[in-house]
Amino acid sequence: MQFITDPGQIEARSMEIIAPYLTKFDLSPQAVKVFSRIIHASGDPDYANLIRIHPDAISVASKALKSGCNIFCDVEMVRTGINRRRLAEFGGQTNCLIADPEVAEEAKRLGITRSMAAMRHFGTALNGGIIAIGNAPTALFEVLRLIRENVVSPCLIIGVPVGFVGAAESKELLVAESPVPYITVVGNKGGSPIAAASVNALMYMLDK
Amino acid sequence: MQFITDPGQIEARSMEIIAPYLTKFDLSPQAVKVFSRIIHASGDPDYANLIRIHPDAISVASKALKSGCNIFCDVEMVRTGINRRRLAEFGGQTNCLIADPEVAEEAKRLGITRSMAAMRHFGTALNGGIIAIGNAPTALFEVLRLIRENVVSPCLIIGVPVGFVGAAESKELLVAESPVPYITVVGNKGGSPIAAASVNALMYMLDK
Repeated sequence: MQFITDPGQIEARSMEIIAPYLTKFDLSPQAVKVFSRIIHASGDPDYANLIRIHPDAISVASKALKSGCNIFCDVEMVRTGINRRRLAEFGGQTNCLIADPEVAEEAKRLGITRSMAAMRHFGTALNGGIIAIGNAPTALFEVLRLIRENVVSPCLIIGVPVGFVGAAESKELLVAESPVPYITVVGNKGGSPIAAASVNALMYMLDK
Repeated sequence: MQFITDPGQIEARSMEIIAPYLTKFDLSPQAVKVFSRIIHASGDPDYANLIRIHPDAISVASKALKSGCNIFCDVEMVRTGINRRRLAEFGGQTNCLIADPEVAEEAKRLGITRSMAAMRHFGTALNGGIIAIGNAPTALFEVLRLIRENVVSPCLIIGVPVGFVGAAESKELLVAESPVPYITVVGNKGGSPIAAASVNALMYMLDK
């Protein structure tokens, strides 16, 4: 069987195939890049119906990334999916505390999820940073609480937790109340590749 | 807003919500666990229509995992999503060569993907192991070639590459010609969380 083996060609052809799914949406060229990369990462054009990008999200993210802002991930899979070499070129780095022993201990003691405890532990380090949540609705609920109580002030929330328990609700709350710009997908779908794809799309559009 | 913060409760409730999506399929209790965990990881019940499990896949995997078999991943995100502590309890470990400098050099020289070169580099280490491909169709095509040419003999292929260029075709070929038992999802969807969820489901069913 013949198949394309050149990575650049694979990606270019993939983007060509995805483009027609987006023509019926009224998207900026930058939003097209975010939508395309999410659909590329999931193989699922239905995401075009689900993605919500706050009007200020891309400009805020572009400025922050160029200034070397850090990215705070709820789980290691999100961190692993982010192009960290590219991020380092801007001066930023990824952070994740899900495997931190203190966080695990606190989560156990309080009967909360580790990703929720991890967001608390980041504390004011989150200020000016980008939060990327690909797994845990509880992490997104917690970040929204920390913002509401003026404890932290990130510049952007990429909030795409996945699943059937709290994910849709946490993302509805994000859209309804967040004073911080966001990228999200409504409903149960989401996940680490969606979060990482969003971060990567925001970085890659700065190269052009 | 009230929400569940206990990880055990979140997972149990999630599985309860997923169960009704599976009643119309004729699945073994073990297959239900694989289906459920994939849907849990993706937030997408449509996977129930797409998952294909070879009749021998679960028994072969159970035996191999209990014997401490290793798992070979195409990308780091798959490895990161696998419960490696649980795998280590059985005596197995995860392997991934996508970031290996020799693999990168060979891929560049031959004009192929790094994940394809990585599968070649594993060579006979793959024998008796479980291959988990969550990203790259080219890696799956390459593994099928290596098996066809009697170079390697893994015990199971979890082949769920994602995307619009080769993913569906590689998975069709897996179902059509693989002499090795497999778990796959037909079509463009797939991804690292699907691969990792499959591995984790296979491990978790051994605890009960």
